[in-house]
Amino acid sequence: MRTKVGIIGAGPAGLMLSHLLHLQGIDSIILENRSKEEIEGTIRAGVLEQGTVDLLNSTGIGSRMMREGHIHHGIELQFNGRRHRIDMNELTDGKTIMLYPQHEVIKDLLEARLMAGGKIYFNVKDVQLHNVETNSPTISFIQENGTEVEQIECDFISGCDGFHGPSRQSIPKVERVEKQKIYPFGWLGILTETPPVHPELIYVHHDRGFALLSTRTPKIQRHYLQVDPKDDIANWSDDRIWSELHARVDTSDGWKMIDGPIIQKNIVAMRSFVCETMQYGRLFLAGDSAHIVPPTGAKGLNLAVADIQVLAKGISEFYHAGNEETLERYSSICLQRVWKAQRFSWWMTTMLHRNVEQTPYEYGIQIAELDYVTSSKAAARSLAENYVGLPMEFKGLEFNQQILN
Amino acid sequence: MRTKVGIIGAGPAGLMLSHLLHLQGIDSIILENRSKEEIEGTIRAGVLEQGTVDLLNSTGIGSRMMREGHIHHGIELQFNGRRHRIDMNELTDGKTIMLYPQHEVIKDLLEARLMAGGKIYFNVKDVQLHNVETNSPTISFIQENGTEVEQIECDFISGCDGFHGPSRQSIPKVERVEKQKIYPFGWLGILTETPPVHPELIYVHHDRGFALLSTRTPKIQRHYLQVDPKDDIANWSDDRIWSELHARVDTSDGWKMIDGPIIQKNIVAMRSFVCETMQYGRLFLAGDSAHIVPPTGAKGLNLAVADIQVLAKGISEFYHAGNEETLERYSSICLQRVWKAQRFSWWMTTMLHRNVEQTPYEYGIQIAELDYVTSSKAAARSLAENYVGLPMEFKGLEFNQQILN
Repeated sequence: MRTKVGIIGAGPAGLMLSHLLHLQGIDSIILENRSKEEIEGTIRAGVLEQGTVDLLNSTGIGSRMMREGHIHHGIELQFNGRRHRIDMNELTDGKTIMLYPQHEVIKDLLEARLMAGGKIYFNVKDVQLHNVETNSPTISFIQENGTEVEQIECDFISGCDGFHGPSRQSIPKVERVEKQKIYPFGWLGILTETPPVHPELIYVHHDRGFALLSTRTPKIQRHYLQVDPKDDIANWSDDRIWSELHARVDTSDGWKMIDGPIIQKNIVAMRSFVCETMQYGRLFLAGDSAHIVPPTGAKGLNLAVADIQVLAKGISEFYHAGNEETLERYSSICLQRVWKAQRFSWWMTTMLHRNVEQTPYEYGIQIAELDYVTSSKAAARSLAENYVGLPMEFKGLEFNQQILN
Repeated sequence: MRTKVGIIGAGPAGLMLSHLLHLQGIDSIILENRSKEEIEGTIRAGVLEQGTVDLLNSTGIGSRMMREGHIHHGIELQFNGRRHRIDMNELTDGKTIMLYPQHEVIKDLLEARLMAGGKIYFNVKDVQLHNVETNSPTISFIQENGTEVEQIECDFISGCDGFHGPSRQSIPKVERVEKQKIYPFGWLGILTETPPVHPELIYVHHDRGFALLSTRTPKIQRHYLQVDPKDDIANWSDDRIWSELHARVDTSDGWKMIDGPIIQKNIVAMRSFVCETMQYGRLFLAGDSAHIVPPTGAKGLNLAVADIQVLAKGISEFYHAGNEETLERYSSICLQRVWKAQRFSWWMTTMLHRNVEQTPYEYGIQIAELDYVTSSKAAARSLAENYVGLPMEFKGLEFNQQILN
């Protein structure tokens, strides 16, 4: 097999890259080790930055999002039992965020790719990268129910295979530096059948730990509780979860959580991670394969999409203008934005979670940070501009709905 | 002896309190264990917030400051060998800071107090506080060259005696909580006979450590280098100091430090400290006796002056209106501002100093913070509004130059 761009991973990064390249007339093949159903069914949060929403719309895959997603103009920060609204729309001169879960974005991207005849191999095994430092890299893999090793010859490989995928490992260890922080925090997430408790997300700091109330559909809500990342979900009966949510979230002026049946619950750990470099020869990492953020800042999907915009631009310039400048600068362009999102995610996480390892002085600073960010317009604006997404610092490909029709 | 307000300490807090009370017709006595010459000769930095400048002017002691001080409209942040200006004036809608050293403020306050017949005892010994939980507290002390213990009976005691003074210790341990952070950073400060190197302060982040270039007079400048707080100044020859300053401060575009004779050098350690509560019975702590900040944010003197404004208002209301409300809330009013200044000072310190204990990930966050604050107007505005001084959150006494004349 031969293609221009071999893409490893059919998450948001891989699918978006394949989609953007297709719009530029550049063919690609995606390899994915999970099934289509598994990808579409992996429930993940979804706060889409304004720029992500704009890209989905301008590339023709935003219509269901615009119908079923929910535009939010602000968030609430709660501490000391009182709520403070951050009016992101006003603070960023009109920007908003879109609540639309990641797996729905994936469904829309998958549908668009498959409708356009995009080549995606699901359930592949033993994916390996070869000769990435040359101009003719290859990917070997075994097809679903196959036994034979097949090869894809390509001009470029994009590693969109997440934190545990093989792509990053194909960059020699001496060529990359991995920087990370493991937090002593985990998130116990639930899906519950209740009406929305509030029109906007509520981020709660409490001495007992962080909580986040978010919304999914008119009938199903998604909430989170900070727990020990090593805790076992078996220790958390539904009653205990509700009792803990009430203790952290109910306010002093009488507002109470709405209880309901819990239809799913799990615990995830939290890390920050950056791989420097994000490129090696003809291999380009994008999304979680290169960087991980804790979910507090809602940046994961958006960072992946930002990487892909740079990469698609670089590859397009290579084929259409013989210009490799953007590709050569890919890692440095992306990392500048990545580190700012890392900073924001680390800051939100540190400000909102209860850290039993911190000193009384550090706890005082944490409360002062909450007090400051909810009382200073400049500080609130700083939070808001990061939450809706910092501007891209390069001129991207211009995708126009009209060209697509 | 008897007075309305017994003040321990003739630093900026004690002198300013005595001055403001005098303007309200309320008498006070100040006790100081150092000599007048020692107080006036203790060289300290001096970045005065807009509010501090306004207070000095509106209470009739600002004229020499306005003549000899230097108004600054911005500061420079330098990292990765490049400089970025924070235009505080533009970012705060017209506010500025004043460079006027603390010991000059002290001279002006001392002169005003002594001219007005203010009672200040210098070189006192064995100052002790008694019955502070009653309405008739007393202070005992021994006068210079005396042997007899004397007593001052008063209605209130203000503990303006710094971190090591006796006032804070007079609050029973069970009634106060002390929170602190010791930094692994020290500042080696020099006074040097050179012309100013730059019209504004330059804060430098460098892999070798922080540096700060500041200005004192047209002929004398004050610079700082981050060193190990346990280092001995004897290890730092003038040549080594200049060579280290050049290594950290000279920029990639050819700008170089101006060398000159070093006329003073010393090393100071750095801590953050807050005592909760700042009041106990009729005893009110103000300034360094209640809280310490690292010098990076230039907040020490300004916080002391802010405390004093609240205290002077409370005491004035007590005598003139029989209203104790402000006095009762003194600690909580001050601590809200204190913690915000603690946050700012901690943040500036953490962002600018090289911490060998930090992980590579944390170092990445530090550089991202510098990159963000110098590229986002909201973040720069947040720095600027803290640097020029956050607004006072209570309505203060109105001091008017015209009333004084």
